[in-house]
Amino acid sequence: MPETTRPLIPADRSARLNDFELGDRMSTASIKISEADIIDFARQYDPQAIHLDHDTAREQFFGRLVGSGWQVATTTMKLMVEAKILGTTPLIGVEVDRIRFEKPLLPGDTIRAEAMVIGKRSSEKSNRGFLTLALSTLQQDNQIVMTQQWTLLLEK
Amino acid sequence: MPETTRPLIPADRSARLNDFELGDRMSTASIKISEADIIDFARQYDPQAIHLDHDTAREQFFGRLVGSGWQVATTTMKLMVEAKILGTTPLIGVEVDRIRFEKPLLPGDTIRAEAMVIGKRSSEKSNRGFLTLALSTLQQDNQIVMTQQWTLLLEK
Repeated sequence: MPETTRPLIPADRSARLNDFELGDRMSTASIKISEADIIDFARQYDPQAIHLDHDTAREQFFGRLVGSGWQVATTTMKLMVEAKILGTTPLIGVEVDRIRFEKPLLPGDTIRAEAMVIGKRSSEKSNRGFLTLALSTLQQDNQIVMTQQWTLLLEK
Repeated sequence: MPETTRPLIPADRSARLNDFELGDRMSTASIKISEADIIDFARQYDPQAIHLDHDTAREQFFGRLVGSGWQVATTTMKLMVEAKILGTTPLIGVEVDRIRFEKPLLPGDTIRAEAMVIGKRSSEKSNRGFLTLALSTLQQDNQIVMTQQWTLLLEK
């Protein structure tokens, strides 16, 4: 698969489907997630003891406090938005498929995302195109925390 | 498909795979999402003009400011956790499939979730089971905002 430099699209111009080829790769910056970040996210969106309380979490599935999978998903979105992978074109997701939580997010993990173009499809009736990306979110030791596929809407 | 009363599992006991039958239904409380909630979420996890800035959003795809799809996803998680669909058993998602964003989240929408059991699978090697749910997140006029499938881990 060809490695391409990033960004594929300059940050100050819009992107079209034809700007991308199958196998194109993108990567994001990284972000450290503290225990406070994990607890703050969980209070708002995933208020379970496995994400909030050390003592209870120790007796449950992971044997320790871990971050919500949805925190990995939303942080991946933030990293992808900030990477401006489509330049000035907004990231409008129409489908997300095959989310797999491979490894729990641990307090203090530093995560980043990598994406590869795995699909391109044009609407016959409109000027719209659909770009499918395979994403991996990795932690500091390059272990995969989460994988997923996004289908984004953009112009042909 | 049989309608069952909710909760299927009392809030004070744990759930096992065998507590559920295909076709069992669950529903959650509802929550109102204000424009301030939309902007606050977007600042943290999806910092795009379509979710943050009225003037820019008017000129982009939806023609107005709309909420992030990830906000619908995480709010659905919160509603499902609070509905205690597995009693005292934590909601541990191993897979999320087929997320479809059917309709944008609008400021002031009140959303809730409905779920139906569509799959049950037992591990042959362990005491683990996997429960698959089809979820719909609906707004106040019963229009579907988002659909998805969750596969949850629990004991047989």
